[in-house]
Amino acid sequence: MRLTKQDCIDMDQRDPLAACRDRFTLPQDEVYLDGNSLGAMPAHLPARMQQAIAGEWGTGLIRSWNDAGWIDLPQRVAAKVAALIGASADEVMVGDSTSVNLFKALSAALRLNPGRKVILTEEGNFPTDLYIAQGVAELFGAEIRYVPSDASAVADALDDSVAVLMLTHVNYRSGRVYDMAGITRQAQAAGALCIWDLAHSAGALHVELNACSADFAVGCGYKYLNGGPGAPAFVYVARRHQELVRQPLSGWHGHAQPFAFVKDYQPAPGINRMQCGTPPLLSMLALDSALDVFDGVDMAQLRTKSQDLCDLFIRLVDERLGEYGFGIGSPRERELRGSQVALTHPEGYAIVQALIARGITGDFRMPDILRFGFAPLYVRHIDVYHTVDVLAQIMASGEWNQEKFLTRKAVT
Amino acid sequence: MRLTKQDCIDMDQRDPLAACRDRFTLPQDEVYLDGNSLGAMPAHLPARMQQAIAGEWGTGLIRSWNDAGWIDLPQRVAAKVAALIGASADEVMVGDSTSVNLFKALSAALRLNPGRKVILTEEGNFPTDLYIAQGVAELFGAEIRYVPSDASAVADALDDSVAVLMLTHVNYRSGRVYDMAGITRQAQAAGALCIWDLAHSAGALHVELNACSADFAVGCGYKYLNGGPGAPAFVYVARRHQELVRQPLSGWHGHAQPFAFVKDYQPAPGINRMQCGTPPLLSMLALDSALDVFDGVDMAQLRTKSQDLCDLFIRLVDERLGEYGFGIGSPRERELRGSQVALTHPEGYAIVQALIARGITGDFRMPDILRFGFAPLYVRHIDVYHTVDVLAQIMASGEWNQEKFLTRKAVT
Repeated sequence: MRLTKQDCIDMDQRDPLAACRDRFTLPQDEVYLDGNSLGAMPAHLPARMQQAIAGEWGTGLIRSWNDAGWIDLPQRVAAKVAALIGASADEVMVGDSTSVNLFKALSAALRLNPGRKVILTEEGNFPTDLYIAQGVAELFGAEIRYVPSDASAVADALDDSVAVLMLTHVNYRSGRVYDMAGITRQAQAAGALCIWDLAHSAGALHVELNACSADFAVGCGYKYLNGGPGAPAFVYVARRHQELVRQPLSGWHGHAQPFAFVKDYQPAPGINRMQCGTPPLLSMLALDSALDVFDGVDMAQLRTKSQDLCDLFIRLVDERLGEYGFGIGSPRERELRGSQVALTHPEGYAIVQALIARGITGDFRMPDILRFGFAPLYVRHIDVYHTVDVLAQIMASGEWNQEKFLTRKAVT
Repeated sequence: MRLTKQDCIDMDQRDPLAACRDRFTLPQDEVYLDGNSLGAMPAHLPARMQQAIAGEWGTGLIRSWNDAGWIDLPQRVAAKVAALIGASADEVMVGDSTSVNLFKALSAALRLNPGRKVILTEEGNFPTDLYIAQGVAELFGAEIRYVPSDASAVADALDDSVAVLMLTHVNYRSGRVYDMAGITRQAQAAGALCIWDLAHSAGALHVELNACSADFAVGCGYKYLNGGPGAPAFVYVARRHQELVRQPLSGWHGHAQPFAFVKDYQPAPGINRMQCGTPPLLSMLALDSALDVFDGVDMAQLRTKSQDLCDLFIRLVDERLGEYGFGIGSPRERELRGSQVALTHPEGYAIVQALIARGITGDFRMPDILRFGFAPLYVRHIDVYHTVDVLAQIMASGEWNQEKFLTRKAVT
């Protein structure tokens, strides 16, 4: 029997996380399915940032480094992130971009495994991960081995030349999720270190880095962590590696005594050595405050809701869009899928633009992917219903087929 | 004849830049002489940031990458910075920290000069510059040659092994300013490339990178550019070098087609290749807006006022503090000095804390430097008078000699 609108309303009423939506401000009538690209704004952010800007900066001025605790802010934010990814507070550092943090982690991992020269990764990895690996490989005289985006292809390519396996936990296009524990075990058994990119995992999936004996991880602050556009990223280094880690971005905030102003670099003890320059504090303060929306949220429950929303979407697409030529570009098994669903369609770009014009925001990824992120803190079951309903209308009417929807924009 | 308070009031009345102070919000009765560490807040910032946060992020969401022009923001900010440092808009990029940008510039310079292996710098350079150079040297198998902070020592050390000369234009402790044109010429004549750190120059001095035929420069957004705590930094690459530059932080925002999501890194044409990951947009939006306080400001006039304020300070110290054991730690010649004056005193730390308690904010640098920055956009001549007057009171009364002023804080 086909699901009805009332069924979805009932699901929302039974949703134990339904009240979390009130922690965000979303435009009236907007269905926002792009939280995997830029998270929604926590409702308390404007007031907090006003206080940070006019109060801490404008009035506190330089004194706020001590009086407002700016100097320890990266560690405080890191502790909040750590709690969401199954890490200890002293294993995570926040600052710089995901790309820069990946550069640090990859460089450090190659130095920890000096007899080996291969960076193993998947050719479908997020491009900046590949670009950074290419930059690192050139510096270290390393070689990159690309394999298809498939766990068995990865396992087959693990030999005794592989220094580092670098994978993104949830694929940015398909949403396919790797078995972190199993692959980490395989990599380590082959003598490789593992770097996980959690860009599409942190804040949406139930990540357990320490339970997986992870080595390194990086991740993004502006997707499911809702830290605002370009929010600082994070890097995780397992405690057992920290004292041996040397990363080349040896800026003063990673020094053992940043304010002693001595001549020679000496890395700070532990995770602090993963810092580099002065962090962008306004962006960092926003991320710090944004993370409070996770207060009291059980990550296992969050993961269940995310899977429920994605399952619901796929079922409604199956039930209602069968005649329009869509494919499902994501795994149908909920445990193999992150918090997003990809549809495929040759006219995907224009269809996404037509949806946006109707107040439903997803995004498009080359060549034919309509990507819908289901941020479980603020997306409702009724939003999923509405999305598929409008998609059916757009396809039935052909309204996607207009010049204004076919013209590509700078950022897709 | 000793200068009087009325003399200073008269100087303010004749100051053609006096009205610029109203472009900032400063706490009532505060004398803020630490703009060289963290610039004051432009008065229009809170409203602009509220609009950026609640409007562009909260309401515009992911669409703001196109609709609010976030994608071109680094270039727009760079154009504003370029106008202050004598560069063309297409020679400057904004993003990341000064440390990270220095890493890019140093790596790029070493690659441009592959037959040489020495990074020449001064041992009194700002520590993060030294630390980054040490990190780069290890990666590239380069060697760092340290010389005393003195132009003739630098010139003497320029031989045919020097790949890069890396100097900070204005010394962070003494305020001593190097002859950028002359030293650049000497370095280039010796076959070296030159990297200038403009951390204490941009926004206070009349910098003319192109007129000096500079190669590379980096600088800070949160000092005299008033971009807010940890504001993004900038990097300059002369147009003649750009197509040959390869920097190792090859993230997607520096790619020729960041949204084509192709597998291989291809550097963007021109200065855009100096970008790496997604920039911290909230911090970047603050810097963008903050730079508007320079609208209509003549940089030569700004430099003159900065020199006048520093001269005034030194004269008042000479006239009024002779008996208290202060030394002048900066050049007395105005053309050899940046926009700050260092006093030296064995009890410098406690004296600075006592000043702060009286509403006058300078800072302390090891081992004995009281550092006073005179940001010419908002510091008045009467502030200078008041500072020396209170210093005299603090020394006469001995009020600096209290436990609360002697205890060191985390950030000095």
